[in-house]
Amino acid sequence: MYQTELTVTTPGRGFTEITRRVVEVVHQSGTATGLCHVFLHHTSASLIVSENADPSVCRDLDRFMARLVPDGDALFEHDAEGPDDMPAHVRAVLTACSLTIPVRRGRAALGTWQGVWLWEHRHAPQERRLTVTVHGA
Amino acid sequence: MYQTELTVTTPGRGFTEITRRVVEVVHQSGTATGLCHVFLHHTSASLIVSENADPSVCRDLDRFMARLVPDGDALFEHDAEGPDDMPAHVRAVLTACSLTIPVRRGRAALGTWQGVWLWEHRHAPQERRLTVTVHGA
Amino acid sequence: MYQTELTVTTPGRGFTEITRRVVEVVHQSGTATGLCHVFLHHTSASLIVSENADPSVCRDLDRFMARLVPDGDALFEHDAEGPDDMPAHVRAVLTACSLTIPVRRGRAALGTWQGVWLWEHRHAPQERRLTVTVHGA
Repeated sequence: MYQTELTVTTPGRGFTEITRRVVEVVHQSGTATGLCHVFLHHTSASLIVSENADPSVCRDLDRFMARLVPDGDALFEHDAEGPDDMPAHVRAVLTACSLTIPVRRGRAALGTWQGVWLWEHRHAPQERRLTVTVHGA
Repeated sequence: MYQTELTVTTPGRGFTEITRRVVEVVHQSGTATGLCHVFLHHTSASLIVSENADPSVCRDLDRFMARLVPDGDALFEHDAEGPDDMPAHVRAVLTACSLTIPVRRGRAALGTWQGVWLWEHRHAPQERRLTVTVHGA
Repeated sequence: MYQTELTVTTPGRGFTEITRRVVEVVHQSGTATGLCHVFLHHTSASLIVSENADPSVCRDLDRFMARLVPDGDALFEHDAEGPDDMPAHVRAVLTACSLTIPVRRGRAALGTWQGVWLWEHRHAPQERRLTVTVHGA
C-alpha cells in the first residue's frame, strides 16, 4: 500500500494533464500487478480519463460543459463565490473526483489514447491537492 | 479487508448525507493507510462527493438535474413505475453508484468541504442498501 | 491480486451486457471478500451499472444521450473520425471508463436489478479491450 500526495496548480478553468505524474507514482510504488487510485480533495474540479492526442478534444469538452451548465444561470441559488461557483459543483458531480487505473507489468495500464486530466472548473487559478494510492503485488 | 453493509432510509427525492457513517466504518476497520469503497446496490439512486457546508448546493444540484432529465419526458418509453422511473435511471448513470476514498493516518481523507451523499432519485421514500469495503495496512 | 484481460466486440452504438463475464472472473479469482475493478482502455465507450431487467431502459438511455450530445453538433471542433467522434468522447466523460464492485461471499455483490454494461458510443463496430482486477481475501 503506497500512498503519496500531489499538488497541482491550475491556471483557472481548463485542463491540466497529470498522466506523467500518475505514471511516475506507479513506478515509485514498485507495484507489478495492482491498482492505482487518484483522489482529488475538492468539489469544484474533476479527474477524468480522456483522449490525449488532439488538444481540440479538451476545448470541445469545456465548450460542451459551458453550454450544459452555464455560468450565472438564474436556476442557481448558491453563488457565494461568483457566477462560476455552483456550475463548478455541478460539473464536478457530473464527472467525478476520483479514478482507478489498473497496474499491469509494473506500469499504469492506460489505453493508447487515454490520458489522465485534472479539469479545473473555477475561473481563477487554484492549488489542488490529490492523494494517489497504489496497491498490489 | 473489512466489509460491512449499511441501510439508508431516504425520504424520497433528495440528499441524505452519509459522511459520518462512512467515517465510522473506516474507524471500525482499523485501517491506517488504504482505501474505502462504498457501493450502492440500486439503479435509481446515486452516491456523490460534494460540498457539505451550504445546503443550497444540494438544492441547486437537484434543480439542475430536474431540468436536465425532466420527469415524464415524452422521450422515455420506460415508465412502468411512474414518471420518475426512467429519469431516476438516467440520473444514476450520469452520476454513479459507487465511490472510493483514500484512508490516510487512520481516517477517511476527505477534503475540507467534501461530504458523501446518497442522492435519492425516486419521489417515494426508499430503503437503500450499501456495502462498504475498507482495505489497506 | 487476480488480473485478466477481456475483449468485447461491439456491434456499434448501443449496449453490450458484460455482467456474466465479470461474474465469471470473480469466480475464477477465488476471492471470498474483496473488490472487483473493471477498466475499459478506450475514450469513446463507457462502463456503467444499470437496470438489466427491461430492455427499454437501455433504449431510453441512448435516446437521452443522443439528445444531450447530438452527433454533428456545430459546437464541436474535433470531428476527425466523423460526426460521432467528439460526441463519443463527451458521452465517455459524462459516464466513466471504469467501475468497482464489491465481492462478498465469493460473488460479485450486484443488486437485484443491477447489470454491468459496456456502452459503445461510436456507430461503427469496435473491438474493446478491458482489464479486470480482483483482490481480497
